[in-house]
Amino acid sequence: MTPLLDELRLAAPLIDAALAEDVGPGDATTEATVPPDVVADGTIRAKEAGVLAGLPLVREVFARTAPDATCELDAEDGDRVAPGDTVVRLRGRARGLLTGERVALNFLQHLSGIATATAVAVARLEGTGTRILDTRKTVPGMRLLAKYAVRCGGGVNHRRGLYDMILIKENHVAAAGGVAAAIRAARAHRPDLKVEIEVRDARELAEALAEAPDRVMLDNFAPEAIRAAVATVDAADPRPEIEVSGGVTPETVRDYALPGVDFISSGSITHSPRALDLSMLITARSDA
Amino acid sequence: MTPLLDELRLAAPLIDAALAEDVGPGDATTEATVPPDVVADGTIRAKEAGVLAGLPLVREVFARTAPDATCELDAEDGDRVAPGDTVVRLRGRARGLLTGERVALNFLQHLSGIATATAVAVARLEGTGTRILDTRKTVPGMRLLAKYAVRCGGGVNHRRGLYDMILIKENHVAAAGGVAAAIRAARAHRPDLKVEIEVRDARELAEALAEAPDRVMLDNFAPEAIRAAVATVDAADPRPEIEVSGGVTPETVRDYALPGVDFISSGSITHSPRALDLSMLITARSDA
Amino acid sequence: MTPLLDELRLAAPLIDAALAEDVGPGDATTEATVPPDVVADGTIRAKEAGVLAGLPLVREVFARTAPDATCELDAEDGDRVAPGDTVVRLRGRARGLLTGERVALNFLQHLSGIATATAVAVARLEGTGTRILDTRKTVPGMRLLAKYAVRCGGGVNHRRGLYDMILIKENHVAAAGGVAAAIRAARAHRPDLKVEIEVRDARELAEALAEAPDRVMLDNFAPEAIRAAVATVDAADPRPEIEVSGGVTPETVRDYALPGVDFISSGSITHSPRALDLSMLITARSDA
Amino acid sequence: MTPLLDELRLAAPLIDAALAEDVGPGDATTEATVPPDVVADGTIRAKEAGVLAGLPLVREVFARTAPDATCELDAEDGDRVAPGDTVVRLRGRARGLLTGERVALNFLQHLSGIATATAVAVARLEGTGTRILDTRKTVPGMRLLAKYAVRCGGGVNHRRGLYDMILIKENHVAAAGGVAAAIRAARAHRPDLKVEIEVRDARELAEALAEAPDRVMLDNFAPEAIRAAVATVDAADPRPEIEVSGGVTPETVRDYALPGVDFISSGSITHSPRALDLSMLITARSDA
Amino acid sequence: MTPLLDELRLAAPLIDAALAEDVGPGDATTEATVPPDVVADGTIRAKEAGVLAGLPLVREVFARTAPDATCELDAEDGDRVAPGDTVVRLRGRARGLLTGERVALNFLQHLSGIATATAVAVARLEGTGTRILDTRKTVPGMRLLAKYAVRCGGGVNHRRGLYDMILIKENHVAAAGGVAAAIRAARAHRPDLKVEIEVRDARELAEALAEAPDRVMLDNFAPEAIRAAVATVDAADPRPEIEVSGGVTPETVRDYALPGVDFISSGSITHSPRALDLSMLITARSDA
Amino acid sequence: MTPLLDELRLAAPLIDAALAEDVGPGDATTEATVPPDVVADGTIRAKEAGVLAGLPLVREVFARTAPDATCELDAEDGDRVAPGDTVVRLRGRARGLLTGERVALNFLQHLSGIATATAVAVARLEGTGTRILDTRKTVPGMRLLAKYAVRCGGGVNHRRGLYDMILIKENHVAAAGGVAAAIRAARAHRPDLKVEIEVRDARELAEALAEAPDRVMLDNFAPEAIRAAVATVDAADPRPEIEVSGGVTPETVRDYALPGVDFISSGSITHSPRALDLSMLITARSDA
Repeated sequence: MTPLLDELRLAAPLIDAALAEDVGPGDATTEATVPPDVVADGTIRAKEAGVLAGLPLVREVFARTAPDATCELDAEDGDRVAPGDTVVRLRGRARGLLTGERVALNFLQHLSGIATATAVAVARLEGTGTRILDTRKTVPGMRLLAKYAVRCGGGVNHRRGLYDMILIKENHVAAAGGVAAAIRAARAHRPDLKVEIEVRDARELAEALAEAPDRVMLDNFAPEAIRAAVATVDAADPRPEIEVSGGVTPETVRDYALPGVDFISSGSITHSPRALDLSMLITARSDA
Repeated sequence: MTPLLDELRLAAPLIDAALAEDVGPGDATTEATVPPDVVADGTIRAKEAGVLAGLPLVREVFARTAPDATCELDAEDGDRVAPGDTVVRLRGRARGLLTGERVALNFLQHLSGIATATAVAVARLEGTGTRILDTRKTVPGMRLLAKYAVRCGGGVNHRRGLYDMILIKENHVAAAGGVAAAIRAARAHRPDLKVEIEVRDARELAEALAEAPDRVMLDNFAPEAIRAAVATVDAADPRPEIEVSGGVTPETVRDYALPGVDFISSGSITHSPRALDLSMLITARSDA
Repeated sequence: MTPLLDELRLAAPLIDAALAEDVGPGDATTEATVPPDVVADGTIRAKEAGVLAGLPLVREVFARTAPDATCELDAEDGDRVAPGDTVVRLRGRARGLLTGERVALNFLQHLSGIATATAVAVARLEGTGTRILDTRKTVPGMRLLAKYAVRCGGGVNHRRGLYDMILIKENHVAAAGGVAAAIRAARAHRPDLKVEIEVRDARELAEALAEAPDRVMLDNFAPEAIRAAVATVDAADPRPEIEVSGGVTPETVRDYALPGVDFISSGSITHSPRALDLSMLITARSDA
Repeated sequence: MTPLLDELRLAAPLIDAALAEDVGPGDATTEATVPPDVVADGTIRAKEAGVLAGLPLVREVFARTAPDATCELDAEDGDRVAPGDTVVRLRGRARGLLTGERVALNFLQHLSGIATATAVAVARLEGTGTRILDTRKTVPGMRLLAKYAVRCGGGVNHRRGLYDMILIKENHVAAAGGVAAAIRAARAHRPDLKVEIEVRDARELAEALAEAPDRVMLDNFAPEAIRAAVATVDAADPRPEIEVSGGVTPETVRDYALPGVDFISSGSITHSPRALDLSMLITARSDA
Repeated sequence: MTPLLDELRLAAPLIDAALAEDVGPGDATTEATVPPDVVADGTIRAKEAGVLAGLPLVREVFARTAPDATCELDAEDGDRVAPGDTVVRLRGRARGLLTGERVALNFLQHLSGIATATAVAVARLEGTGTRILDTRKTVPGMRLLAKYAVRCGGGVNHRRGLYDMILIKENHVAAAGGVAAAIRAARAHRPDLKVEIEVRDARELAEALAEAPDRVMLDNFAPEAIRAAVATVDAADPRPEIEVSGGVTPETVRDYALPGVDFISSGSITHSPRALDLSMLITARSDA
Repeated sequence: MTPLLDELRLAAPLIDAALAEDVGPGDATTEATVPPDVVADGTIRAKEAGVLAGLPLVREVFARTAPDATCELDAEDGDRVAPGDTVVRLRGRARGLLTGERVALNFLQHLSGIATATAVAVARLEGTGTRILDTRKTVPGMRLLAKYAVRCGGGVNHRRGLYDMILIKENHVAAAGGVAAAIRAARAHRPDLKVEIEVRDARELAEALAEAPDRVMLDNFAPEAIRAAVATVDAADPRPEIEVSGGVTPETVRDYALPGVDFISSGSITHSPRALDLSMLITARSDA
């Protein structure tokens, strides 16, 4: 799995910013101690098990700090790794490898952390028809990359942002003058977008279903309430998709993956992932 | 505590990028359902205990999405909050509050997560002379804000990046032809910068001390080895600072905070913080 | 009607670019001939009938070239104007008014041209249930402003770009291995987006309806074929929206606005609008 | 004819902006339905007669969306095309061709529209000594490309903007205290620039000629008044160039191209061109 | 004298870049030692005699580093100063004054150095009809500001760059196939621009005059040759302006300012100015 | 000697800005007179003796204006040149060589001027143990390149900016409440940075030494006072470095290079360098 061309193109400014904030006017240590012509091998290895995401970014980072280096990927995004697995092999001037190391790892570790957290949740849902959906709770600047990492981990992306799907929440309903008014306003203003509506109880669900939304979000429903809601939704024509949200932890996700639940959305996979432990070993080559 | 003027100025492009990636060409739901003249109150509250960081960024976000709104901070960065505490009060057009909500929270939750993780480690060191130091392991793009959040949590910043301090690691030593050569090259190339050197055992420490570095990093030393190293360092004139790094978890940090250890550095406080749980409640005003 | 805050924010770089390309390193004529303290009145008037779009951009242009000037809008976007109607009144330093005049008019005339062309088409559809939809055929750089102008003229916006709706055309069908495969792939990849599919004859329409798309585009259907297609679509459950596209000119639009046709899309309203004739009169004030 | 290197370099940000506004975070339809390894041929053909402008931009667009594709130009800018003529042949990954198609056509159709409108006016002047001049009435952001398209159509460029020629209009004269004062101020302030002055009647023309401008613009002169003005100008030493402006339509342009008239300027060729009808056919290759 | 609005607007990115390169992620010394609420007075004084240029930039710098400070200009650009003269008075937070000091002075000293060098040359030409002209030999990035400083010193600006005047040199003549061909090509390609031609001897001058250029540049002519050339030019109708260039030093400038010489151009006033000595005194206020 | 990769990367925006300000929308003379296919040789030669700096930037400039040209460097930065020495040989389209000539020379002449001025001062210190240090007195935008040029001339760089070393001056001492308080605050706030302190007399020196700074700056000390200060500093343990600053001219620098003085800093080498005289000869090739 690789990020799409558009995603990589859009990541370029972030890669530049990450290098700018880390390298600034220059890697003083490397400039002082490493002669320009020393050639080295670099190897990125996993130190724990997980799912990879971000390898093409590693290549992009070193394309900037070590333009002459070769960069071979021994794995691809979405792959599971075990401790000790080699994932990237680099060869080029030691200076550039040393200067790019930390930024490359910062991308790879954060994104692989997201992919791994997603994969854990996905694994828990195995055998159910429910899929893991991400949210807009991402570290600022990382939105598209975070959503790519979720796909690497087997998850499904929710909307990219506020612009590509309508998601009507309590405040929107209140401002629009009710559930029906809100859904109709959304359809009239943006007939090209899907409409999802958040409901907090059976009454709101019934109101929403009358307006035939494309998806309903059951917000903070207990498992038993979800069963009842699914029955109600199944009776609707057309039947909207069902997303369960709120109050679900990675530990309890299976309890909510009830028949008829299409999606469970999780904020923590993107807002609080634990960075996957990977490290880079650099070895100067005696024959260079 | 507030971020410095320079830090806030430097954060502006990231705030713009975060809004661009979330709002894109427009908040379709809000445009469709919320009339432009509806005024609302917004309140950001803590849902768990922690230490705050990022409040001035909340103000900056809403200055862009709701330029007419007022934004009062009921707390300041570095404050501890308890569940239910109000930290920000906003009043302005509902549209702008709704559009900026998620980006504002994404900043505040990530940075408060860093501050809280730092504060936990700092608390464990209470009564020792050892301080918590951060690293360059930050989510790409967040470097300066992450380091600000570490200060909010009571930690001390290590170098900002590769440019403002020399930190000689194994590869630099190898390329320079030994510890002495590396330190001398660093001093000659950049007499204006401090020199820290990473050592992995007592022999390397002895070599390093002979060159009078400003700081030594004891990398992956067990507590007993640290005690011995401190004794060696104490005998050096001038005595460099001691940083302990590697193999330290938040749970075991106290075990390494031995007498004479000036700093313990922690990557996890910035690369894997759990976002602090905060939420925003928006209420349209009946009298507007 | 005013552009949304997000749209205005996104237009800022284009306004800057438009001034940069016109003013460059300075308005040589004005610098040479107009003393800095001369104050003037500026009045923008319509020279022909039409519908306005772009007035807030006029204000933004002069905020840059004449920051001290006042700018009163005597009309608002979406208003119809008659020849001679005043639409903007400015007062400020003559230098800034002269320097900004052409760029302000270039925005206002192009966007009002789009609004006027749209309004003409909308008027022809009066009494039918069919609405005018725009396309992605816009002058490069003007997309969001052009779509705003379409709304000013009474039209409805189709998707903003390639990112916020699925529109499956012939090539996509071929690559995906058929109509059904294409629609299913779209639903799986982006469950958050609406799916429209272009069909070229009754057989393709039948295949498409079997997959329940959100909208079908009848491409280059003659009026009689449209009638038959509407009947087929009306029998589908759920019934998708119908968009008619291709072969429709402003003169013949009414012939295609048959019962059951939800939308007719028009490229010419944005790719070939005639600029609305508006001019600016500047008069130095004797009392200044 | 090809755009100059500097013009192409300056167009790069506009190409990026045009792709950003159209593709946004990704071409959802193509990503979903077209496998990454499908290769296709793309052919851009004219659907009506006209003059081409913008082919190098087509290449630049696909260099971004389909970096691996080949792009052969079967025609060059300035060429006349007949319906059915092939102008560009592409071969590469189908995804990139589909994603870039609309932006490439938007550039090519708008610029070819300008070139065609210019060529029509130029053709009407055949046999006279009068040439067609463009104006600053261009769609915002398109200035340099629009002026390039005018050259492709056989027209002559007037100044690029406010910075590279002095053009004294009524307001400048009033502020400077008369025609003589204005021209002298212009010469003193910018001895490196040519000076043109707009005159509205014979008296103003006489005043202007006394100051030896480089060019006079006869604004809204009827043909008979132009004949008289030419006679007056011919008697001046040095004799300035004559530009006729205002009140000229494409239909009447020949009536104003009287002996001695060097230039007739036209706003409509750039502010209201009809997009030239061109389309792109994409065919997946069976052997790929 | 103040820079024009357009010039100041165009200087903004350079001011930002100058602060970015100097302040980077923060003024470490000031952050550490100066409490945020200390208020101070700042005074910029001349330490030697000269002509000022750049005061509005001083204000712009402190508007960024000390947004709350007041900044009074006691002199204006173009003024002569004596040692000890106060030129700027600031009051505001000490932090911002200290952080902006060096960048503000770097602008003011470089530009005042240009203005002073220009004024020296201008003074030497007093009583002659010859004026000092600048060149394109400016420190990269400073072009428009350097040309503004030249005007502050009493000089006249030559073209801003390669785009706003034709200046035909030896290579252009050779490529075009002779002097006449070159001038005619220039007139045909850009009828809106003035044409200057460089000549190296009497024969080239004669050839050039036959094509009636707007200005001739006598390149490396000795004073006696200049006298002869002036006589030749005076006989031409129309008579072009005369610019003397090359081989002129500030010491010998008067020798070349012969009757009929309109301009002498000098590269050294912009490529090698000595920075004017100015310094800033900052005093914390006891009553703040 | 070549600039570091990071320095070259950071110079890219300045090169772009320098071309933008010089070329603007196009090199009108070259476009008009030089056919696109003329090939030429370009040779940059020294016209006076000096030390080179900036050759890699020459290559970068022509990579933009003449992407097809070859650029051979016959010398490298840091080399001494004699009048007539060839330093760069170019071959490519004449248009691109002509368009890039001035910007390339502006970089090369300014930076070589700095290198040469530095080398003069360095030569005067030969045989002493004192080295030349630069300052932050650089032309805005040129900081990193100016510091690179200083290294080419044999000088040593002081801090890059306000961010990478602490330099406590009088105002900082006053605000912090004394020398000891200032140094302690600096160490506490930024334990990763070196601390230098400026002292104006023996008393301040004594106070400073008590806090063990990394370097002391003797500001405006006469040679005899310097001797005494060196003696005092030599007695300190640890002994800080000594920088002499102020009141030193290139002529008198040797008088201050007394035993024990580690550095003499000079502002004039970067704020007032005389541009080194280099020129470019372009010859069209008859065989092209």
